Amino acid sequence: MERPVPGGLRGEKEEEEEERVLVSEHSWRPCPTARRRVQGCLEWVKRQLFRVGEDWYFLFILGVLMATISFTMDIIIARLHAGKTWRGFHRRLGAPRGFGGYLSGGAAPLPTPLLQPTCGCTERSETSGCSSTSRGPCTPWHWLPSPPASPRASPRTPEVSQLHPDLPGSLKCPLGDGEPLKFEFWFPHPRLALGSGISELKTILMGVVLEDYLAIKNFGAKVVGLTCTLTCGSTLFLGKVGPYVHLSAMAAAYLGKMRTTVTREYENKFKQHEMLVAAQAVGVATVFGAPISGVLFSIEVMSPYFAVRDYWRGFFAATCGAFMFRLLAVFNSEQETIAAVFKSNLKIDFPFDLLETFFFLILGIICGIVACAYLFCQRWLMVAVRKNQLTAKLLATDKPVYTVLVVLLFASITFPPGLGQFMASRLTMKEYLTSLFENRTWGLLTLNASGVAKPGELWQEWDHPSATIYGTLIFFLLMKFWMLILATTLPLPAGYFMPIFIYGAAIGRLVGEVVALLFPRGLYSEGPPRPIIPAGYALAGAAAFSGSVTHAVSTSLLVCEATGHMGHVLPTVLAVLVANAITQKNQPSFYDAPIIVKKLPYLPPIRSRHIASYRVVVEEFMERQVVALAKGDGFQEVLAALDASTDAEYPVVESIGSPTLVGTVSRSQLVTFLQSHEHPQALQGEKLAIMGTLGDDCTIEPIMLQFSPWTSLHQAYHLFQLLKLQRVFVTRSGELVGAVSRAELRRAIEDVANPK
Amino acid sequence: MERPVPGGLRGEKEEEEEERVLVSEHSWRPCPTARRRVQGCLEWVKRQLFRVGEDWYFLFILGVLMATISFTMDIIIARLHAGKTWRGFHRRLGAPRGFGGYLSGGAAPLPTPLLQPTCGCTERSETSGCSSTSRGPCTPWHWLPSPPASPRASPRTPEVSQLHPDLPGSLKCPLGDGEPLKFEFWFPHPRLALGSGISELKTILMGVVLEDYLAIKNFGAKVVGLTCTLTCGSTLFLGKVGPYVHLSAMAAAYLGKMRTTVTREYENKFKQHEMLVAAQAVGVATVFGAPISGVLFSIEVMSPYFAVRDYWRGFFAATCGAFMFRLLAVFNSEQETIAAVFKSNLKIDFPFDLLETFFFLILGIICGIVACAYLFCQRWLMVAVRKNQLTAKLLATDKPVYTVLVVLLFASITFPPGLGQFMASRLTMKEYLTSLFENRTWGLLTLNASGVAKPGELWQEWDHPSATIYGTLIFFLLMKFWMLILATTLPLPAGYFMPIFIYGAAIGRLVGEVVALLFPRGLYSEGPPRPIIPAGYALAGAAAFSGSVTHAVSTSLLVCEATGHMGHVLPTVLAVLVANAITQKNQPSFYDAPIIVKKLPYLPPIRSRHIASYRVVVEEFMERQVVALAKGDGFQEVLAALDASTDAEYPVVESIGSPTLVGTVSRSQLVTFLQSHEHPQALQGEKLAIMGTLGDDCTIEPIMLQFSPWTSLHQAYHLFQLLKLQRVFVTRSGELVGAVSRAELRRAIEDVANPK
Repeated sequence: MERPVPGGLRGEKEEEEEERVLVSEHSWRPCPTARRRVQGCLEWVKRQLFRVGEDWYFLFILGVLMATISFTMDIIIARLHAGKTWRGFHRRLGAPRGFGGYLSGGAAPLPTPLLQPTCGCTERSETSGCSSTSRGPCTPWHWLPSPPASPRASPRTPEVSQLHPDLPGSLKCPLGDGEPLKFEFWFPHPRLALGSGISELKTILMGVVLEDYLAIKNFGAKVVGLTCTLTCGSTLFLGKVGPYVHLSAMAAAYLGKMRTTVTREYENKFKQHEMLVAAQAVGVATVFGAPISGVLFSIEVMSPYFAVRDYWRGFFAATCGAFMFRLLAVFNSEQETIAAVFKSNLKIDFPFDLLETFFFLILGIICGIVACAYLFCQRWLMVAVRKNQLTAKLLATDKPVYTVLVVLLFASITFPPGLGQFMASRLTMKEYLTSLFENRTWGLLTLNASGVAKPGELWQEWDHPSATIYGTLIFFLLMKFWMLILATTLPLPAGYFMPIFIYGAAIGRLVGEVVALLFPRGLYSEGPPRPIIPAGYALAGAAAFSGSVTHAVSTSLLVCEATGHMGHVLPTVLAVLVANAITQKNQPSFYDAPIIVKKLPYLPPIRSRHIASYRVVVEEFMERQVVALAKGDGFQEVLAALDASTDAEYPVVESIGSPTLVGTVSRSQLVTFLQSHEHPQALQGEKLAIMGTLGDDCTIEPIMLQFSPWTSLHQAYHLFQLLKLQRVFVTRSGELVGAVSRAELRRAIEDVANPK
Repeated sequence: MERPVPGGLRGEKEEEEEERVLVSEHSWRPCPTARRRVQGCLEWVKRQLFRVGEDWYFLFILGVLMATISFTMDIIIARLHAGKTWRGFHRRLGAPRGFGGYLSGGAAPLPTPLLQPTCGCTERSETSGCSSTSRGPCTPWHWLPSPPASPRASPRTPEVSQLHPDLPGSLKCPLGDGEPLKFEFWFPHPRLALGSGISELKTILMGVVLEDYLAIKNFGAKVVGLTCTLTCGSTLFLGKVGPYVHLSAMAAAYLGKMRTTVTREYENKFKQHEMLVAAQAVGVATVFGAPISGVLFSIEVMSPYFAVRDYWRGFFAATCGAFMFRLLAVFNSEQETIAAVFKSNLKIDFPFDLLETFFFLILGIICGIVACAYLFCQRWLMVAVRKNQLTAKLLATDKPVYTVLVVLLFASITFPPGLGQFMASRLTMKEYLTSLFENRTWGLLTLNASGVAKPGELWQEWDHPSATIYGTLIFFLLMKFWMLILATTLPLPAGYFMPIFIYGAAIGRLVGEVVALLFPRGLYSEGPPRPIIPAGYALAGAAAFSGSVTHAVSTSLLVCEATGHMGHVLPTVLAVLVANAITQKNQPSFYDAPIIVKKLPYLPPIRSRHIASYRVVVEEFMERQVVALAKGDGFQEVLAALDASTDAEYPVVESIGSPTLVGTVSRSQLVTFLQSHEHPQALQGEKLAIMGTLGDDCTIEPIMLQFSPWTSLHQAYHLFQLLKLQRVFVTRSGELVGAVSRAELRRAIEDVANPK
């Protein structure tokens, strides 16, 4: 009765359709043989192309895409700088005094925090039930467990979906759904990527899933926000390396999803990881136009272990990116040919004297000590800002207000006619670097300024009549120290590598100028004079300070690649090693600090000086109270187990009497098990509930890896890092005796470091 | 009765000694407080020094030691070259013709093979029972199983100690003794390190123990042999990178043993591995004086996975080595300050035109194709020389004869007044490189040779009046192709990286000169002329060819570091990537070839184009017939199991009925078990043999890692490489169903690559 079309008519239509299908398949298209040949050819081309391995194409696209975005952003920022008429005007006029000048010069970057996009936040906070807490002193990160597998199971399973507002970033195990462990990151603001985003990527590569962090929808917001931040230039003194790595990770994740659509291949965890690793390299490489050191730096910063296979992929993508980046510079007529990004005109024939090695060593020690102080203060402030009621409230509800206040402070200090004249604050970030890597000795230039130097050269910004270059350099270092630390608390998408790099270059320049002042003829009194080249010290200082803050040694290569100058590579490496030795012993790296403060899963390194660590075995620190299930367990036992712990997966043993470990069962499986046994029990008593046992109705996953009680701490540590493990069970001749997770491992390492 | 001293006297003596002890402990030493303070100070210094972690000291020593040896060797070789009066004489005189000239110029390197040391061979071959086979067609490598744990067990355990002369390098599992797998390498000649020693080090890092390979007793022999080989110079056309890596691995292993003595720490596998990884880096870095690329190259060539921790160690040791190497050069007044090893005077202001990228691409393709041909021919010859009766016999018994014959052939061909004049054979290895990286364009120099060039410059060796520079370059490339391949069969300790590097530089120079000839004004017709710089092509060619032969991309950095020139880094990287893409698809690397030919455990890479590989699971390729033991097994069953297979360790299951995997028991344990139960059985029948079961009397080692049947091929592959596994058992809900070793994994990967 509800059929709108009578049977007969329908039959005719079907026949007609069938005929049309026949027609369209066989005779409607002309030249079947030619078409078939063309199709064959295309198939052949496709096969040939896919022989290469389709991921190379995606890596190529990733590199080119990121380079284009990076270059476009640079152009836009340059235009915006030129377009800030007030600022340009003020620069042309010299230094106007008074409130008008302050407004024009200092307050120009003020619109930046206000222009930051605010999209992508509200609808999410409402659906995930976070709106209530986000009004309070809402910390920037929340661990949200994923919703339970089915709403029907939730009343009986322990409630873990409440937030813990008192514990910022407290870790909660979700209801497992196949993945080993899964956390959802919730951004109260999509642009809020404290710690420049590298720490979070590091956590992802550790094996923790932070879902939204790589969502492509934040891409645009981040690009716009970053552009706004960078337009501030040297007032905020922030860079773009970190956000760039984040952006390219987002792009890589998106391209990975596209690839699975194109090749109809199921998404593979290894492939995803490969793409992410390549993405980091692209991020660093496109900013500096340095492919080799880009790959190395990202490796050092990101992961404790890596595969050479990934390294090749990263290398390829980074080269594509760096090539494209420099190519665009050529097309844009900035350069005549592909050359280094921060091209320096250093002398190559006699870079340094052998005895200068000693001063490079001292430079390394200074950089190491300053880096320790910087890291300590930065971590302290990060905690203090969260604990202080006023700032915590401002950061939670009125981020723009906080940002405006800080930017206003910075703008007042760097105001060029004011204090700014003592710290060369008219220079942009790139000009800072170019002037610090200046080939000539400033000390000599100031002596005969009228003769050699043309007016308007960059180094003259550093030369204040009353303070001299030494005074400005020292003042710059003192002021930027706390300004840089304060800038890291700003809720803006920004990188902190570039400022650190410049800061190091300034330290190096100061040391170099002082050495040049002390030894005007070089270190040898006989023979022809071989003057000291302070630019070499600036290179070494930049590499040593940035390297020691980030715990990386590849920055020594980065300065070489970025400046195209190889002459100082050995003393630079030396300074970097010395500075790293000091910092790595005393402070966690810049990128580890947010992980520690936010209580993300973190494993401290085992120091080789803790010789006792070789004797510690798993038995001493494993968790002994493991909630386990037996194969024969029924409804009651499963319910008790789910109540007793919130693990993502439960170990299953043969029976309680002989606890031979058989495998694991995931929490979601157990929830399903409860659901299918709930109703029968309610209706017919205990009979049915006993009938269905865990062993019969649940898929028991086999165990890939298990420790014995005599596995050493070192072995366990290496395996956790190598295989990105979250939890491993400990068995003694097949019987379950305990479990080890990252928390236990961390405690054990800390106990070894600080024995009671 | 046997006491020589009566009791009373002895008592007195004891008292006296006691007194003396008291005296020596308390009053014999002056100023107890001062001494205690000094002692306290020393203790404090020691604590402070050990705070740094003592391995850094050892890494420092390793770097400095190897650099010193490398430099000393260089000096000795240079002296020997100068001291070869005949040769020097001939050079001074020009080119004397006739037999006398041939003798003086060509046959000078002849003593080299005869001077090779022959120590350390005979006594070993006699004790290990190999002397019988070594007289026949003895292949250079033999796998010798370690002797059975006790001679009493041998009559009953399967006899595996016979050699398999028909299977060169056939793999035999030894009687396990704690180590997962253990092979003993036997050198019929200690200097015989075909494949330059890197392949064997690679095998060691894969987790296979090759005991004698790292024994310090071969150190001296290798140093002397290598010096002799290198004294031949360009006649043999061999380098020192490979042997250098081997030497520094030996030194590292020895230092590691020393450390365990000093710190009284038990020898740790992780520490050993760390030292070996650092050693490779030192080996490469001290030859080229390039720390960063040294580390990278060794990583790429050696291991599929590595830890950033190891990378830092390698970096530190390599920097110490490189610094020392260049420092010695300064002290020896070769250089004024620390500079690049192959310092080139390239122009830096305009390295290359954008359009030249195309020619660099073509250069990459050429290098890739030539590398494929080279690798193919080299592998073919390696097998052919072993199969051919004459050469096999010569290599087995009369190595010096074979070497002399080949060297005589080479000397005749490179004889400067003969064919040698067409291939610049008067140059040494270093001069080859210096001349090929010459800044000026040879084509232009030859045109106005009278005007610009001074007589006696290196490039003039390449300029033959009738053949022109193009002719000599082509002839050089053609002749060196087969000579280089033939040289790899020589039983001499020698490296093959340097010749490959020079060969690539020659390819690049040829391409560069041709491009410069075609476009004398550069690629743009307008504007000022921008001439092509062929030296840039030589750099790119050297990196691309050596990179593709060794499957490494870090050679692009190596050329930059070794020449101190950064201008061509991007086109070099491009050429290297293209060349690598071609070679890696078609040929195994230079260092894998010996592993394959000698049937050392080798895992081929899984190509990303083999998409089917993602669907292969362990169940499809695992070994199903695993010899297992039950906990309750007695004498008879253990005996049967030992007869049935030669595994190093046997899986132990709960019982035959329910084969739940409990652990493993080593072969040596089983042998001991048999020994302790053998005699009672012979005396009292079957009673006692049944009484003692495996579960009671043997230590069952717990299992660290097991696969499930659904573990994917990729996962298994990664785990084998990451954890350097040799064999893993497969369980289904705890029950043993199979095993996977490298052999099965390799077969599975080959099946995926070549589906039936």
